[in-house]
Amino acid sequence: MTKTNPGNFFEDFTVGQVIQHATPRTVTEGDRAVYGSLYPTRFAIPSSAAFAASVGLDPHPVEDLIAFHIAFGKTVPDVSLNAVANLGYAELRFHQPVVPGDTLSTSSEVIGLKENSNGKSGVVYVRSTAVNQRGEVTLDWARWVMVHKRNVEAPAPEVVLPELASVVAAEDLILPTGLDFTSYDFAAAGEPHRWADYEVGEMIDHVDGVTLTDSEHQQATRLWQNTAKVHFNVEARPDGNRLIYGGHIISMARALSFNGLANAQLLSAINAGAHTAPAFAGDTVYAWSEVLDKAAISDSVGALRLRLVATKGRDESMTLRGDDGKYAPGVLLDLDYWALIPQ
Amino acid sequence: MTKTNPGNFFEDFTVGQVIQHATPRTVTEGDRAVYGSLYPTRFAIPSSAAFAASVGLDPHPVEDLIAFHIAFGKTVPDVSLNAVANLGYAELRFHQPVVPGDTLSTSSEVIGLKENSNGKSGVVYVRSTAVNQRGEVTLDWARWVMVHKRNVEAPAPEVVLPELASVVAAEDLILPTGLDFTSYDFAAAGEPHRWADYEVGEMIDHVDGVTLTDSEHQQATRLWQNTAKVHFNVEARPDGNRLIYGGHIISMARALSFNGLANAQLLSAINAGAHTAPAFAGDTVYAWSEVLDKAAISDSVGALRLRLVATKGRDESMTLRGDDGKYAPGVLLDLDYWALIPQ
Amino acid sequence: MTKTNPGNFFEDFTVGQVIQHATPRTVTEGDRAVYGSLYPTRFAIPSSAAFAASVGLDPHPVEDLIAFHIAFGKTVPDVSLNAVANLGYAELRFHQPVVPGDTLSTSSEVIGLKENSNGKSGVVYVRSTAVNQRGEVTLDWARWVMVHKRNVEAPAPEVVLPELASVVAAEDLILPTGLDFTSYDFAAAGEPHRWADYEVGEMIDHVDGVTLTDSEHQQATRLWQNTAKVHFNVEARPDGNRLIYGGHIISMARALSFNGLANAQLLSAINAGAHTAPAFAGDTVYAWSEVLDKAAISDSVGALRLRLVATKGRDESMTLRGDDGKYAPGVLLDLDYWALIPQ
Repeated sequence: MTKTNPGNFFEDFTVGQVIQHATPRTVTEGDRAVYGSLYPTRFAIPSSAAFAASVGLDPHPVEDLIAFHIAFGKTVPDVSLNAVANLGYAELRFHQPVVPGDTLSTSSEVIGLKENSNGKSGVVYVRSTAVNQRGEVTLDWARWVMVHKRNVEAPAPEVVLPELASVVAAEDLILPTGLDFTSYDFAAAGEPHRWADYEVGEMIDHVDGVTLTDSEHQQATRLWQNTAKVHFNVEARPDGNRLIYGGHIISMARALSFNGLANAQLLSAINAGAHTAPAFAGDTVYAWSEVLDKAAISDSVGALRLRLVATKGRDESMTLRGDDGKYAPGVLLDLDYWALIPQ
Repeated sequence: MTKTNPGNFFEDFTVGQVIQHATPRTVTEGDRAVYGSLYPTRFAIPSSAAFAASVGLDPHPVEDLIAFHIAFGKTVPDVSLNAVANLGYAELRFHQPVVPGDTLSTSSEVIGLKENSNGKSGVVYVRSTAVNQRGEVTLDWARWVMVHKRNVEAPAPEVVLPELASVVAAEDLILPTGLDFTSYDFAAAGEPHRWADYEVGEMIDHVDGVTLTDSEHQQATRLWQNTAKVHFNVEARPDGNRLIYGGHIISMARALSFNGLANAQLLSAINAGAHTAPAFAGDTVYAWSEVLDKAAISDSVGALRLRLVATKGRDESMTLRGDDGKYAPGVLLDLDYWALIPQ
Repeated sequence: MTKTNPGNFFEDFTVGQVIQHATPRTVTEGDRAVYGSLYPTRFAIPSSAAFAASVGLDPHPVEDLIAFHIAFGKTVPDVSLNAVANLGYAELRFHQPVVPGDTLSTSSEVIGLKENSNGKSGVVYVRSTAVNQRGEVTLDWARWVMVHKRNVEAPAPEVVLPELASVVAAEDLILPTGLDFTSYDFAAAGEPHRWADYEVGEMIDHVDGVTLTDSEHQQATRLWQNTAKVHFNVEARPDGNRLIYGGHIISMARALSFNGLANAQLLSAINAGAHTAPAFAGDTVYAWSEVLDKAAISDSVGALRLRLVATKGRDESMTLRGDDGKYAPGVLLDLDYWALIPQ
């Protein structure tokens, strides 16, 4: 009997099935520091315990994306080890900020299945939930991946397609317990722009660029215990390059977006995300944002719905798609999310 | 008077001499995070405080190899700065897990000496002990190195050869205080295989590979305050390469061994280790294991004696030695150790 | 209205103006670990909580340069984003050691202005102060930079030139509260040399060298939230190289100086610093020191005024300047500082 994990194939999934993912992972102050060494993040809440306490968050939360990457990474060995493609995610909501000492565990429920017409693979839909050591939900999301069949002769399951919202409705966003921006210190946070200063349709070029290295993306991806071969092993791809984990580009672009969105302090939801081109060491990543929508959340807290685009090389024209409707050359990431910002 | 440390030469050692090594080093949650960024480790005990507490370990221990590398690194400036070769180690036992806040100090006693027939060097045997800030032993081990003489005219000391066991006897393994695998959660740990599922002679190919980088091995080696020139300075070797610290390969192989040995949670002893070939940035490291022996330790805890082999490039045939009895090409590490696993 | 920060130009500064810099930053045990992975530091006080407590420092301070880099990095977006050149710093004093949990904020007062005769730029002098969350001063310093004018037609301000000391007087050095070297453990610290063993004029070759990598200097520089483009973006310089942050060379040289100055435990002041040549990945950095002065601080604590020189390639002759009075080829850093050492 082989002891190593072969992963699940399409016919191993059934609608309603619940998978408890290994391995629980405790978040520490060390994660905050390593994250800060890998991404140029300067958002005042994860940077400063004193600032966080001044807006009602005590103990000191870590960067929201730390929780995202850890929670997401847990699902890989069970859901996407035999994936042909990661097709999408939706309805991701951040419930409560994660603080050092929290232990995160993730489970997934299969919510949809559809075999492809070629009979060789199929699409698996899961809803995943990360909880802390007290069983409180930290974040949850839906995701769909195309997975190989082990045996092409296996019969196709009944088609079940879940209904997924293209955008998390503003009224479904969760205000972290205690969050109050009434006495928010804009000088300490680095920019004067509040919720009212942003207009729907506004575009922001975040100016700065970062050239990627293999050591750094490997360190980041390992930190989340994401062990997909292609990120670490030059023998895993014909071109001998290590493919950079898409989440590395998300974190890099989010950090770069500080320059222009310094007060968009907390992630509240991710509506959709497309990793539109591969990234490799040596690429220089830039970012721009577009304001897609706005909503008031509480007396002091507003939400901005933002499109965050990462590009290889700077594109001051901030072009998302060409005339053919396809993503413009150089676009690496198209992320649609809600952020919380002082009103 | 020169202020820098010239290290000890063969004639500086006398049997019975005790050396207190600099510098004491406090282990922190930061070490856990940096370790997790450098090695693809997923063992549930060091990963999760909640999981560790569920098996009786609270506060939350760090990876055993963190203690090993720190304790070992302390001995370098006094024992092996003028070494011709690191010849071997034996009888390494982990006593109690190390937790954040523990300060480790190492001392060594010279237990054997034998001048080489060429009169230019000799073999020094030491027994080293690492203790925490309360004086409790964390780990101890024997080691022998070949060291240059400063003055080839110096008289040879009386030959003293210590008796060292080739394997730590199962009854000498130390059960960490409180460790109880009775309510072990195999789903959370990532694999269903318990002690009874492993057979002596069984071979496990750990499948995954990691391509090494200079930045990563330098960061790891510095973390242990091991400052041997060859690891950090391209001018220290004729080929201009930075030789990778052997301990980096140990930690990499151990982390890779999760895939097939996820429940071999804790190191208990290292019986022997051979670093059979040098490793450099660009090499892709794989690992395989062989079950050498088994022993019951308590009602819930078993021990597996394992051979952990790291290779440059994957060798699915898992060949340790060629017909000539020499290590097969590509073998980097042959490590013989005891691990603790749920019965 | 653009949302991104264009930085201040020469005509934006007025004498007496106070700038509160973003973003406050909490120091953690994670910073200690990442720092230890990037620099070969072995000084016993930041290495060991037990050692630090034995000399009166409890809780456990982090490396002084961690505070320096964080405090300094905060000033970049407001003071030197449009700098032509960093001209110098002076009168830097470390007040009290920083411990994990401290949140650092920096503010600067403009203390001098002088437009250049070309009318295109001018020199701005600021005095910067970093305080912790209780408002206690952690360190302060003066600095002057040459900054572009936005509009060359803008009138020149009145010339104000501050008086700055070339050396912090020994009687102005601050003894950290509680520091007492009476029961200092030289064996644990790694070298036997005390204050009395060093002579003014003594030169120390620190022997070891470290080859720089892009990943490592980027990680260090990010950790301090210093986001100057030239350190991270190959498209920011015509030669396509990432310029290494000068502070990276300071930390590297300081760590290398352990070998010969292991007991120069704490930085007390920086009198002056010149970054005399750029450094890039692939360069191998060595260091040497010269004892410039000595002073007694308390019954158990002495101070050494040291020149710390970093070189590209080892220079056993320890030549600072050529016959022409210019810095010798290979000199990267000339740092003049006071360190505290047991009497």
